[in-house]
Amino acid sequence: MKALAINGGAGRMGQTLAGGLSALGRFSIGALVDAREPHELFGASYASSFDEVDADSIDVVIDFSSPEGVVAAARWCADNAKGLVIGTTGLTNEQRRVVDEAATKVGVVIAANYSVGAVLSEKFAALAAPYFDRVEIIELHHDKKVDAPSGTSIAAAKGIAAARAAAGLPEMIDPTLRHTLSGARGADTFGGVKIHSVRLPGLVAHQEILFGGPGEGLTIRHDSFDRVSFVQGVALAADAIDATPRLIDGIESLI
Amino acid sequence: MKALAINGGAGRMGQTLAGGLSALGRFSIGALVDAREPHELFGASYASSFDEVDADSIDVVIDFSSPEGVVAAARWCADNAKGLVIGTTGLTNEQRRVVDEAATKVGVVIAANYSVGAVLSEKFAALAAPYFDRVEIIELHHDKKVDAPSGTSIAAAKGIAAARAAAGLPEMIDPTLRHTLSGARGADTFGGVKIHSVRLPGLVAHQEILFGGPGEGLTIRHDSFDRVSFVQGVALAADAIDATPRLIDGIESLI
Amino acid sequence: MKALAINGGAGRMGQTLAGGLSALGRFSIGALVDAREPHELFGASYASSFDEVDADSIDVVIDFSSPEGVVAAARWCADNAKGLVIGTTGLTNEQRRVVDEAATKVGVVIAANYSVGAVLSEKFAALAAPYFDRVEIIELHHDKKVDAPSGTSIAAAKGIAAARAAAGLPEMIDPTLRHTLSGARGADTFGGVKIHSVRLPGLVAHQEILFGGPGEGLTIRHDSFDRVSFVQGVALAADAIDATPRLIDGIESLI
Amino acid sequence: MKALAINGGAGRMGQTLAGGLSALGRFSIGALVDAREPHELFGASYASSFDEVDADSIDVVIDFSSPEGVVAAARWCADNAKGLVIGTTGLTNEQRRVVDEAATKVGVVIAANYSVGAVLSEKFAALAAPYFDRVEIIELHHDKKVDAPSGTSIAAAKGIAAARAAAGLPEMIDPTLRHTLSGARGADTFGGVKIHSVRLPGLVAHQEILFGGPGEGLTIRHDSFDRVSFVQGVALAADAIDATPRLIDGIESLI
Repeated sequence: MKALAINGGAGRMGQTLAGGLSALGRFSIGALVDAREPHELFGASYASSFDEVDADSIDVVIDFSSPEGVVAAARWCADNAKGLVIGTTGLTNEQRRVVDEAATKVGVVIAANYSVGAVLSEKFAALAAPYFDRVEIIELHHDKKVDAPSGTSIAAAKGIAAARAAAGLPEMIDPTLRHTLSGARGADTFGGVKIHSVRLPGLVAHQEILFGGPGEGLTIRHDSFDRVSFVQGVALAADAIDATPRLIDGIESLI
Repeated sequence: MKALAINGGAGRMGQTLAGGLSALGRFSIGALVDAREPHELFGASYASSFDEVDADSIDVVIDFSSPEGVVAAARWCADNAKGLVIGTTGLTNEQRRVVDEAATKVGVVIAANYSVGAVLSEKFAALAAPYFDRVEIIELHHDKKVDAPSGTSIAAAKGIAAARAAAGLPEMIDPTLRHTLSGARGADTFGGVKIHSVRLPGLVAHQEILFGGPGEGLTIRHDSFDRVSFVQGVALAADAIDATPRLIDGIESLI
Repeated sequence: MKALAINGGAGRMGQTLAGGLSALGRFSIGALVDAREPHELFGASYASSFDEVDADSIDVVIDFSSPEGVVAAARWCADNAKGLVIGTTGLTNEQRRVVDEAATKVGVVIAANYSVGAVLSEKFAALAAPYFDRVEIIELHHDKKVDAPSGTSIAAAKGIAAARAAAGLPEMIDPTLRHTLSGARGADTFGGVKIHSVRLPGLVAHQEILFGGPGEGLTIRHDSFDRVSFVQGVALAADAIDATPRLIDGIESLI
Repeated sequence: MKALAINGGAGRMGQTLAGGLSALGRFSIGALVDAREPHELFGASYASSFDEVDADSIDVVIDFSSPEGVVAAARWCADNAKGLVIGTTGLTNEQRRVVDEAATKVGVVIAANYSVGAVLSEKFAALAAPYFDRVEIIELHHDKKVDAPSGTSIAAAKGIAAARAAAGLPEMIDPTLRHTLSGARGADTFGGVKIHSVRLPGLVAHQEILFGGPGEGLTIRHDSFDRVSFVQGVALAADAIDATPRLIDGIESLI
């Protein structure tokens, strides 16, 4: 049973991971590291910083803290020969360099999305891409999301475009001849993949990748209802690494 | 049992209507009027023009011919005291004037869409509009459709905007602050209703009207798979009229 | 501005309503009534029972407590000439009798479902029912739901069957001739409406009512993501009543 | 460019394949074999039986005829060293034996479903199966389909169950405790995969495989709108084989 320290362990994601990972039965939560005191401890000891963490009691650090927090975690893991799983995003180049350096000393997984369903969606889309004439993406999010299109949809479009190119297929051309109103046909992205972004209160995070060919359609839909969906992907990452130096970028290779 | 003459009776729509209407059991097909000879007669007599139609044998004319054909049908109906149901679109102002004049002498129904499902969709959308914070439309069509967005989706947006305005609701504001790629948020239409147009081979004609409010969503989806879906709406129109002067614009009021 | 007392105000629904209703700007929360102390007060005073509530400060009582709590609320409203909105379910006949008696003295709204989207779904389904040959319902819930099919889906089926019967349509007959495996064709309910119940972790509460006719389909989908969706329906009910005796059963008539 | 003979070439499927395969540009249609005379020839010569076919002009035979027709095609291919692609279903054991024997002399592909989208759906479902707690299938067909559940959905359930078992996952248990009406929870199939069969006029052939886990869902939907969707799968099969003895059962391995 691997013992985990969760950096950012008092945050909403940290608390969700602590609860979800301990419930799986194959991890113990050794420490919750956070400047703020956690609401629940899940059997872990609380540490306001890594200085207070007993290195002997930890196998892997899970980081869902902040870009600065990642630097502290990466250094501590490198110094103490612990694996590191990073879900924090928005790192500067310099912060990312510290992570890459840590990966020359210990095992590190870094990913923007730990949802297994999202990763499978992207994988299936790339597999289906060579067999259909056209593909468009609809991503639907709550109305508090500030940007459009979503990063996830752009990543999916990129993967689809690469798979089409690898199969020798041409860029897709928009068949619409008469645009009565601009914007209706969505954003034009990699390889001609169109992305349509819907924003409605009530929604959480949803994505449909729609393929069409003569007489048939194939749709891959992913619904994210709750952040607890990250638990499984983080668990796969924590399973995959230890002190052996290694950098795993994205969890696709673990699925 | 009303006897129908179908103008444009050799065309694909005319043949579908002849078969579908006669199968309902409450209409007989008295004449198929068309310059081309029809593939199937469905018990009707064939007339290459209205000159050859025996007026005594007909109660109502169904016109799915051409803008010029509509003019001939409207004049014949006005002269012979027959009801007229028009599904032909693309009339010039002058052609439309002839139709309006006929409606001062006999009953006329004119509509762009005889699909009951499409009409119900639009009606439900207007009824739901006052109760939700935001609404967006996704319309999905085969890749041979030349224009975007679809006329049906624009009509639905107009109805939703009118219903919101009548309920004292403000225009909707796009909540997206950062547009990474233009077009992602769709076409901006009446009252801020966004329309997204998807074009894929394999599809026929589909539309989703998505409403969102705190904690919930309501979606009205209409799928058109085949032109036979017009039979019911044409039948409702044929039931509704006779020689009494009257103009019914759209079949909403018949449902 | 109406002042509300929320019975069951410390519960999850009570707290959600207190926050949601006060945010609308047209209600003040005068009192939260609950044996347990509430987490948040939303400007209200706390009362452990109705004995502690200052009647002069309240216009309408909102009850999402327990069957016993409803009885106390109904008696207090009848005695103090206050309107009452009841969302608590599972009342015995005797408890319901107390509610009905209160409605002879003050205004009472009682409903099993305050989601406007759910009520609109049911209404639209009844409106569409006369125009389609067949209809089936798919309801999808999280895997902790103990019963199947859902009460909401059965109520929808009942409304559809009544609308079909009123239009002179016959009971629907299952077209399936060969049942390879029993259960595939769902539960047979009112008027032959089939209900299919899907149970998956991750889901919240979702329902699709699917209508089909020649060449077309119409689908009404409702998604409940969060209990905050009840706020609007409760607000409509609170708006609708005062001390004038009246019983409103279900919020359909308020929409 | 491979030259194809289409057995059953006057039927609806045969005509669709002749048109679709010749339009791809990498096949010529050498012969349409059918007792009935074909409506269109697509550049092929017409043969009322294989006796009239010039073997030198053909590389591969495509059979969408009848179980008896398959036997004739298999013998002719074996005798003349031609590849054979079989889409005809409903073979007796004896008829199937003739096919297997032909495959010891020439290349043979036999499959129940040549839709690439359907095959990809099944493949993706098996890949996703180990990562979700529960999965259910909804298949939706027109009301003329005589049986339920569909063969395609049962095959998908079988593949999912095998993938779950291979990953060491247990049979799924229905979480429903109280069945108010029997049948609501669908048909119980391999590994506890539930199948729900919807039958509505207007629909063609559609299938949704719904996976659910903590906080997320993944849905794989396939829509068949027209038999032209078989063209691509038949083309992949025709590409894959020649006179070299070989039996390919299903087109999964070709995708």
